[in-house]
Amino acid sequence: MSILPTPNSRKHNFSAGPGALPFEVLEEIARELPDFRGLGISIMEMSHRSKEFEGVVADTRAALTRLLGLGADYEILLIQGGASQQFAMVPMNLGPGGVYLNTGEWASKAVEEAQRWGETFEAYSGKAETFRDLPSEEQRFDGPVGAKYLHYTSNNTLYGTQFHHLPRTNLPLVCDVSSDFISRPVDMTRFDLVYAGAQKNAGPSGVTIVVAKRDVLRTFKGDSRVPTIFRYQTHAENETMYNTPNCFGIWVVGLMARWVERQGGVAAMEVLGREKADLIYSAIDERPDFYQGHAVKAVRSLMNITFRCATEALDEAFMAEADRRSLISLKGHRKVGGMRASIYNAVPKESVAALADLIRTFGR
Amino acid sequence: MSILPTPNSRKHNFSAGPGALPFEVLEEIARELPDFRGLGISIMEMSHRSKEFEGVVADTRAALTRLLGLGADYEILLIQGGASQQFAMVPMNLGPGGVYLNTGEWASKAVEEAQRWGETFEAYSGKAETFRDLPSEEQRFDGPVGAKYLHYTSNNTLYGTQFHHLPRTNLPLVCDVSSDFISRPVDMTRFDLVYAGAQKNAGPSGVTIVVAKRDVLRTFKGDSRVPTIFRYQTHAENETMYNTPNCFGIWVVGLMARWVERQGGVAAMEVLGREKADLIYSAIDERPDFYQGHAVKAVRSLMNITFRCATEALDEAFMAEADRRSLISLKGHRKVGGMRASIYNAVPKESVAALADLIRTFGR
Repeated sequence: MSILPTPNSRKHNFSAGPGALPFEVLEEIARELPDFRGLGISIMEMSHRSKEFEGVVADTRAALTRLLGLGADYEILLIQGGASQQFAMVPMNLGPGGVYLNTGEWASKAVEEAQRWGETFEAYSGKAETFRDLPSEEQRFDGPVGAKYLHYTSNNTLYGTQFHHLPRTNLPLVCDVSSDFISRPVDMTRFDLVYAGAQKNAGPSGVTIVVAKRDVLRTFKGDSRVPTIFRYQTHAENETMYNTPNCFGIWVVGLMARWVERQGGVAAMEVLGREKADLIYSAIDERPDFYQGHAVKAVRSLMNITFRCATEALDEAFMAEADRRSLISLKGHRKVGGMRASIYNAVPKESVAALADLIRTFGR
Repeated sequence: MSILPTPNSRKHNFSAGPGALPFEVLEEIARELPDFRGLGISIMEMSHRSKEFEGVVADTRAALTRLLGLGADYEILLIQGGASQQFAMVPMNLGPGGVYLNTGEWASKAVEEAQRWGETFEAYSGKAETFRDLPSEEQRFDGPVGAKYLHYTSNNTLYGTQFHHLPRTNLPLVCDVSSDFISRPVDMTRFDLVYAGAQKNAGPSGVTIVVAKRDVLRTFKGDSRVPTIFRYQTHAENETMYNTPNCFGIWVVGLMARWVERQGGVAAMEVLGREKADLIYSAIDERPDFYQGHAVKAVRSLMNITFRCATEALDEAFMAEADRRSLISLKGHRKVGGMRASIYNAVPKESVAALADLIRTFGR
């Protein structure tokens, strides 16, 4: 019995997250799922303390370490709770006293959680201009005396903006990289800690990847009331197995990381990502009378492309036509309206070309 | 291409968790995984806000509601972090001031987390007798003035003990049901809140099931510093979709719940569970000179059976013979030693019979 669909039956999937996975990774999962490596049980049925599963965790961490070019002074946690849990864990572990750049929906939530926990400094807010722009490369964010870290969001999923530079600061850098993780080379030595929900560029939902300096993770300096499970130290000292992790999810993150390696790593992902984004942005820019991008051009995202037609009725007609062409999940977030095309690592260039074609033909 | 193993190639899996899943559920997962319900994408590739995934969440909650016989005043959350996160969330939301019955490894961790957060009363400890016994049905645990709730652990995975009664108390009951969830009928109206990691009786790891009175979930009475994501209210008000959940895991929990329904529900699970446990306990009890159970007979668990031979060398020989017969994951936790057979819902009676046979033949 064949249980795999042909690639041809696949939709062109522009979901903002959980996002597309490569077809060959889905094939790998389906093949190995009921009988993992011939062991006679599924990956979902084995103790997380078994040597087989410890091998899966080691493989996943090793593949991510290679992709990110991490030195021995960095380590990777594969935990639960998503970026939203990190909004709380960052100030619980590194704060209070964080300086925040508020550049979008998720950045705003990070600010709110930090404020709930203690003193927090909002050094930038793009809210007044509906988050269509970002701080410039020249701006410095050193923060007041007592500031502990600078937190920002590298890619703003809802608004379609992305930092193409690292913010200037004398503070330790902390970054929510959820929606552009492993999509381009990044000098990780500049960061104290980054975190990502896996469900955009790196796997299924339910796994959170935290990459940080070893001594940042292993030295807890927070309030004594912070629960054991919300301390990075706990997870680091237990080699990310303090409690039962999302075993299936960690395995898939490893498959995805190795898929990125087979494509040529993060440098190749960036080249491909730029080609894909250019296909769409150029189609939009050809008809400025018909399509309007949300983000300021200089900070356009290579991951999430936000645009709209002149009227909501035209937006609806655009999405209906997209649906007829098997292009799905293009509806923009309600706070922005219009369309949003998420073109993460796993979205094939063919899907992006199909969207660019729709943009051109619909605009006529 | 057939990617499914035959049931015959399956190991007899006695893992304490993540535990066995039914073969027919693995088949369902493998069939639907790459192309979910013919939608042209995987369950892992769709927005958690899509109507298809909202349907999956609704189906999973509905199946669990039926299995547990819940009234409209109860509701179900499907969140992340495992029971270990609940050890922190219970006192953050319902405490401080919890009364705890310390009946094993996980109960001890729950006590420690509650103590970290604030005043906590340990009303019982089985530690001195290596947790081989539990409080009797006659004992009352009303707690001191100001006590907020009584927390206990219905089944103690490491030590192989299980409550066969509800503790007597005038306090709201809170229970960690991780390792005997949906394995027997329980009068849920007696509980304010129960929680379970899915990975023993109800699905893969990475999903935590919280079942509680609606007004307990929806009324936050804790400290203002408690992060948004660690408040039950947040998850309840957002219909368990505050942030991206473990989508794949929630789907599998639903498949598992419907599998239990097809077997006849929790009443049938209890009958089968008792038959399975009796097969093993009677084999052990036939040779009291050779095998020794860890738990006092009156509180023996129907889920985790702990026993040992006269010497560690014999234990090792037993497990080597088990391995030759394709019986796996029988090693006891290092704190108890000997063997542990976890016979959750999905462990087939044939596997249990194979173990009982080994116990008899090895004892000769």
